Amino acid sequence: MTTELRSDCPIAAALEVFGDRWSLLVLRDIVFGDRRHFRQLEREMKEKIAPNILVDRLRKLVDAGLLTKQDRGPGRTAVYSLTEAGISIVPVLVTVGGWGARYGGIPAEVQGPPQELEASGPEHWEELMAELRERHLGGGAQRAAARSTR
Amino acid sequence: MTTELRSDCPIAAALEVFGDRWSLLVLRDIVFGDRRHFRQLEREMKEKIAPNILVDRLRKLVDAGLLTKQDRGPGRTAVYSLTEAGISIVPVLVTVGGWGARYGGIPAEVQGPPQELEASGPEHWEELMAELRERHLGGGAQRAAARSTR
Repeated sequence: MTTELRSDCPIAAALEVFGDRWSLLVLRDIVFGDRRHFRQLEREMKEKIAPNILVDRLRKLVDAGLLTKQDRGPGRTAVYSLTEAGISIVPVLVTVGGWGARYGGIPAEVQGPPQELEASGPEHWEELMAELRERHLGGGAQRAAARSTR
Repeated sequence: MTTELRSDCPIAAALEVFGDRWSLLVLRDIVFGDRRHFRQLEREMKEKIAPNILVDRLRKLVDAGLLTKQDRGPGRTAVYSLTEAGISIVPVLVTVGGWGARYGGIPAEVQGPPQELEASGPEHWEELMAELRERHLGGGAQRAAARSTR
């Protein structure tokens, strides 16, 4: 962690890492949208993140240990993977999304993964987290890392 | 809601309301610290919020429907109360605090209400929310409101 703690409160400590307007949206698109490349994240984010802000947030999330970046050599785009700390953001995304669905002025007919997960309870959050571990920490991620270090 | 939606995503909608560096800390101190007055919130926040930022955040949280402000007449300090939307922030505080306790660089011996609640599961979050309803929406809040409108 490179962030400076304002207090010993775990809520404040967490907000130092992802308590800005964009970090959770970047993590959302990786978790629920399986976007792993810079261009995908930039082009497909509904809220239209500016490229320089995306560069900054990805670097901060790597520095804070929520993402790893695998460079795959010339001409190949780098791959971002969630770490265990990044995967552990799922309950935050689910509870934030659950609040937004009820109180954020979202039309009732618009339902997405966070609302469904919130309704189905923590044991289903765990299933998503297990799936993310396989995708980001499992075989696929290890093969990508092996390619980038040989 | 007076905020402008950047997308129909409930996570983005929620972050429009409380996704800045201070709003969740203000709500934390009301939820876990039972601070109901401006001076209490200002003086007792561990992270030392600037008075003008606190004024701004309290107004935004009232505008967004998470808090109500009861003016009690000349010489008496106003009382802030959580609404149902404000009480519904509890799962967010608990999951954010749980993440921060594990990954935010907090010493292991520092344990607070969010970590204990996260470990004990959603049914205990509900107990806290029921208690907050009684304290903020129940008899006490109604008496304060009656005083302020007569």
